[in-house]
Amino acid sequence: MSSPDEMPAAPERSFASDNAAGAHPAVIEALVAANEGHALAYGDDRWTAEAQARFRDLFGPASEAFLVWNGTGANVMALATMLHPAECVVCTEWAHIAVDEAGAPERVVGAKLLGLPAPEAKLVPEQLASLAHLQGEQHHAQPAVVSITQSTELGTLYSADEVAALCETAHRMGMLVHLDGARIANATAALGGTVQAVRSFTVDAGVDVVSFGGTKAGLLGGEAVVYLDPALAARAKYTRKMVTQLPSKMRFIAAQFNALLHDDLWISLARQSNAMASRLYDATREIPGVAFDVPPVVNSLFVVLPNAAIQPLRDWSFFWDWDVSRHQVRWMTAWDTTDLDVQRFAAGLRHVLGGNFEGPLDGASSGG
Amino acid sequence: MSSPDEMPAAPERSFASDNAAGAHPAVIEALVAANEGHALAYGDDRWTAEAQARFRDLFGPASEAFLVWNGTGANVMALATMLHPAECVVCTEWAHIAVDEAGAPERVVGAKLLGLPAPEAKLVPEQLASLAHLQGEQHHAQPAVVSITQSTELGTLYSADEVAALCETAHRMGMLVHLDGARIANATAALGGTVQAVRSFTVDAGVDVVSFGGTKAGLLGGEAVVYLDPALAARAKYTRKMVTQLPSKMRFIAAQFNALLHDDLWISLARQSNAMASRLYDATREIPGVAFDVPPVVNSLFVVLPNAAIQPLRDWSFFWDWDVSRHQVRWMTAWDTTDLDVQRFAAGLRHVLGGNFEGPLDGASSGG
Amino acid sequence: MSSPDEMPAAPERSFASDNAAGAHPAVIEALVAANEGHALAYGDDRWTAEAQARFRDLFGPASEAFLVWNGTGANVMALATMLHPAECVVCTEWAHIAVDEAGAPERVVGAKLLGLPAPEAKLVPEQLASLAHLQGEQHHAQPAVVSITQSTELGTLYSADEVAALCETAHRMGMLVHLDGARIANATAALGGTVQAVRSFTVDAGVDVVSFGGTKAGLLGGEAVVYLDPALAARAKYTRKMVTQLPSKMRFIAAQFNALLHDDLWISLARQSNAMASRLYDATREIPGVAFDVPPVVNSLFVVLPNAAIQPLRDWSFFWDWDVSRHQVRWMTAWDTTDLDVQRFAAGLRHVLGGNFEGPLDGASSGG
Amino acid sequence: MSSPDEMPAAPERSFASDNAAGAHPAVIEALVAANEGHALAYGDDRWTAEAQARFRDLFGPASEAFLVWNGTGANVMALATMLHPAECVVCTEWAHIAVDEAGAPERVVGAKLLGLPAPEAKLVPEQLASLAHLQGEQHHAQPAVVSITQSTELGTLYSADEVAALCETAHRMGMLVHLDGARIANATAALGGTVQAVRSFTVDAGVDVVSFGGTKAGLLGGEAVVYLDPALAARAKYTRKMVTQLPSKMRFIAAQFNALLHDDLWISLARQSNAMASRLYDATREIPGVAFDVPPVVNSLFVVLPNAAIQPLRDWSFFWDWDVSRHQVRWMTAWDTTDLDVQRFAAGLRHVLGGNFEGPLDGASSGG
Repeated sequence: MSSPDEMPAAPERSFASDNAAGAHPAVIEALVAANEGHALAYGDDRWTAEAQARFRDLFGPASEAFLVWNGTGANVMALATMLHPAECVVCTEWAHIAVDEAGAPERVVGAKLLGLPAPEAKLVPEQLASLAHLQGEQHHAQPAVVSITQSTELGTLYSADEVAALCETAHRMGMLVHLDGARIANATAALGGTVQAVRSFTVDAGVDVVSFGGTKAGLLGGEAVVYLDPALAARAKYTRKMVTQLPSKMRFIAAQFNALLHDDLWISLARQSNAMASRLYDATREIPGVAFDVPPVVNSLFVVLPNAAIQPLRDWSFFWDWDVSRHQVRWMTAWDTTDLDVQRFAAGLRHVLGGNFEGPLDGASSGG
Repeated sequence: MSSPDEMPAAPERSFASDNAAGAHPAVIEALVAANEGHALAYGDDRWTAEAQARFRDLFGPASEAFLVWNGTGANVMALATMLHPAECVVCTEWAHIAVDEAGAPERVVGAKLLGLPAPEAKLVPEQLASLAHLQGEQHHAQPAVVSITQSTELGTLYSADEVAALCETAHRMGMLVHLDGARIANATAALGGTVQAVRSFTVDAGVDVVSFGGTKAGLLGGEAVVYLDPALAARAKYTRKMVTQLPSKMRFIAAQFNALLHDDLWISLARQSNAMASRLYDATREIPGVAFDVPPVVNSLFVVLPNAAIQPLRDWSFFWDWDVSRHQVRWMTAWDTTDLDVQRFAAGLRHVLGGNFEGPLDGASSGG
Repeated sequence: MSSPDEMPAAPERSFASDNAAGAHPAVIEALVAANEGHALAYGDDRWTAEAQARFRDLFGPASEAFLVWNGTGANVMALATMLHPAECVVCTEWAHIAVDEAGAPERVVGAKLLGLPAPEAKLVPEQLASLAHLQGEQHHAQPAVVSITQSTELGTLYSADEVAALCETAHRMGMLVHLDGARIANATAALGGTVQAVRSFTVDAGVDVVSFGGTKAGLLGGEAVVYLDPALAARAKYTRKMVTQLPSKMRFIAAQFNALLHDDLWISLARQSNAMASRLYDATREIPGVAFDVPPVVNSLFVVLPNAAIQPLRDWSFFWDWDVSRHQVRWMTAWDTTDLDVQRFAAGLRHVLGGNFEGPLDGASSGG
Repeated sequence: MSSPDEMPAAPERSFASDNAAGAHPAVIEALVAANEGHALAYGDDRWTAEAQARFRDLFGPASEAFLVWNGTGANVMALATMLHPAECVVCTEWAHIAVDEAGAPERVVGAKLLGLPAPEAKLVPEQLASLAHLQGEQHHAQPAVVSITQSTELGTLYSADEVAALCETAHRMGMLVHLDGARIANATAALGGTVQAVRSFTVDAGVDVVSFGGTKAGLLGGEAVVYLDPALAARAKYTRKMVTQLPSKMRFIAAQFNALLHDDLWISLARQSNAMASRLYDATREIPGVAFDVPPVVNSLFVVLPNAAIQPLRDWSFFWDWDVSRHQVRWMTAWDTTDLDVQRFAAGLRHVLGGNFEGPLDGASSGG
């Protein structure tokens, strides 16, 4: 391998995570514009009213949206309004709520999570059906909410039909369905890139409550809990406060969303993010030593690399490990990833892996 | 009284609340500047490192600061790291944690709150001592944390000596002390307006953990939990995540704080807010029909008005009721309240109360 | 005063508490009889079926009873099935749930308790009405359950009409009513001593859920949560397990209740307990130095004594302090308190207070 | 198969569960004897003092025992005193705390459970070591307690060395060890049947806290939480109350334990229970159609039967399903199972399976 000091120029934006990106300029602009004079706190302002209207445009006039700080907060608030004592949440073993929220659902909601095996981080109706023996069993927390993630923690997607089948089974069994949409923008872009697309796998499929992600989609910070079944929103505003997720100067969350939801900017940005993931895949998959299990369908790539290459590459442009036992790492694109970022990263990868370089990137690596 | 349509010009900024104000321009500027390229999420960025250093400058090198979204979150996180099961929090009956957080401490921390009577929203050491009979009593949650608010929910202040006396008694009884500093800036401005002032009633007085308010002090949104006793911070980072208060793109909270803490801007802004409250008091206290119990010491005024005057006045420039049984309302200044806002509000008040107008405001009301 | 070694014979049974008494012989006999061979656990046995039928006889065919271990458990289970997140319980400042359960409701139910001032430990409808301003207020946990205690922690009673008035107001405001009946037997005995009496202040008055006390009424241990509104019982069995209150060998709780509920034994025993309290009052109220605020209506007496007399008297026959600031102590009778116990206690009291002894007790104290 | 009406006599005691058994006569006798006059409640009585002394005799003078109602309560209390916020419990996927407690640990303790795969319901040190990557990870609840069950939910046993190895790894990683001993008597009987045996896999092995089972061992009801590390008991008494597990008339739990712990009755009874399981295995394993995976080591047998035989057999003498997908059922012996029960059950099994009967059991079934 080449020595690190001979590495080509690193990409300006790393492939560490979509939450390493900043905010889109239109979002910043809207936020700055909202900083005019006084506005009542806690959502009694015109920016919040506009955001609520925009969410109704998206999910239908009966839906109700509540703005919150972050994804864990959105999930916890959603679940708290959906569950009773001694009930549990069915999810995959990969679910963010089960793995990456430091026990917030257990603590704040007081609920058990049943994390089912799911090689692709997707549940299937048969798994729900297999829980029927727990229903009525007084020793076991009752399965009451199915929580799915779209796009999933493994970068996979549910089709609208798959979500509908899950909802159908869940509802038949007396369960509700929550969709953790921290990356709902990427899913929407991948499944058609239209408002109809997002409706197809949410409200039309029978989902009851959505955690709608804004932060990874291009905001500074901000998420929404959207009740597609408005009956579940009856205690939402009190619950939001109780789970510490009521923003004081809410106009600054709302203004960001208003920019993001305007002209489907959120879909456009996710389309770019997804496209860059595909491009990174194409630019790297034939480099000797690089092994993907599957091509990306949204904005994350899981790749096995020669062990010795990982640290030098990471020192040059940061990314996270995924499964260290098989030297698998994760690369993730963001709304602001550029073609040049992809080209530079691929060049560095070729350089570190000692490949035989050809094409326009040769110059960058020829000194190696 | 005059008819509403003859009212003088309303103030640009109402006296509804300090959280109705926006963010200071320097804060906005810093936030915009922080939106440059990628930065690792969850606090592993240079803006957060700077904010942590600034808090160490303020509270001493042993202290540790954790940035969070909002005040309820800060309080809940602080208490969660200070309490064990079957312990309780001693506070006043006015405490924000007891009255205005929708049961978040009970739910998320799992703790009982003992809200003691306190006409001025301030605890005294004798009240702590009177709880000694609960200690060791297996039927009662054990008093383990004293939580005081500075400045208080009633706009009063603890002197540094008063805080020290509470800490001394609390520690002697084996209890810890939490200070809810949602308006710590106003308290600091009122108690000397220097870094030494804030130290005098926190770290020097023996306080263990501070909720440091940024939102009301001029941020878009952002608070900090500052551990003056760093031993209590051992599990803080996990607890922050568990209570849903870990900001993803943390640089945007940190950058705001960096601007606010620079050159003691937070104190300067609070000094202005406090000064405007005094000015409003001076400008209105002699108007017939206006009755204050006490002059303001920070930025809130509690005032009894003729009942018939309240709604017309509120329709013209919004403010909140306080104690409807005695027609008492609350006026609150903010960091951006101007002298002209005060003059206009006083003029409107005179107009509504049908007073005898003099000076530059006469013109505005002479048509009445 | 006389020296302790010259004290008259102490009562066999102290006046410390009704939970210092053992179990009634019929209860023991039933329990021993239930220890025959095997029976399925967790309530699937004939003794439990009988107990459930006996409770239906008492509270009506629609009611549903669930057997549990103890009073705190009964209260916590009841409240957990009645509350949603961000809701709170309205009770008095004296309520057992607020004062004597070590924070169990806050922790296990996750609910705030609003302990209202109540000199006689009784709520009135006006107090509920005064909470209307909290309804719809997103910063405050929503009042959702009114919990009253009958007989109260201060030994007072609600009349059936008073309970009905509270229920009427609570229901009109959208709240449910829980009755903590740890001493429901004493209340029943005092309010008529019939099954119709207990119905009058529970199911007929509109109470939704009752914690029915067995332990203080003559059991070894055992309580029941009785759902008068069976819709609230939908998740009761899972919730019972979740709050750790599902007895494994339930037949042994059920058999005790079957004996206690047979031929209204529970009412007879409470009548005896109440009667002994009245007798103790009569036997002591004119002794110089003894000061009662009010005569007992159930089985507890609160009495102010000369401070110097308290410890010698307690050393001779134990009882608990109540309000040390005014030298007030509590005496409590039990189902097994006898007339001789009362006579002996009164004699000892006279002895310690140095009174002028007359009547049959003279002999016992004449050596003093 | 034979028709049901020709079935041989059913066993007097079923093989449904050890909690279907009643209490041992010595236990009943002790309980009845304890019903003498008054005794202070909540543990301030001589029976409780004796029980505490007996547990110190068993586990060493530094240990501290707290009596509670039931197994779920014991586990929840133990965990509540061992965990801080944002920490989690490591256990097997079969653990009673994870599967059979209706979410009580999640709700009452507020803790996440990590249920690791374990074909024999036993953890190994390597599994703990594999969690090291979670330590220090702010997004994940921190592994803080390892909870093992002895004997396990699958009827297997940890050797003392295996427990010691787990404790060594756990402590090295900064974790504590809880042992769920709902069937600690059966484990003790199987591992030597002496006091030294129970010490070998608890206090000597490094276990920190034990849930000591009494109910399945021959009590009416009663368990103990025994702190082998007394430092962890500092807040145990308040926590016991908070988790609703403080018995009021505690003498009646204590008296039962005093009888059970006297002359190692608990071990003798478990020895009988275990022996009957072995005898049942011997009496049935060669019956055609009966398939055991392994012989029993304590008191439970897991057996695959012809599907058509299960219901008729169960209708005759009840037992529970275990894994319906493979027609596996569970048979469990109790302290009172007799040799005749075993013979009768084996006879019925042979009868239902239509086997060719030989030997001493022929007589029992020949009348069928």
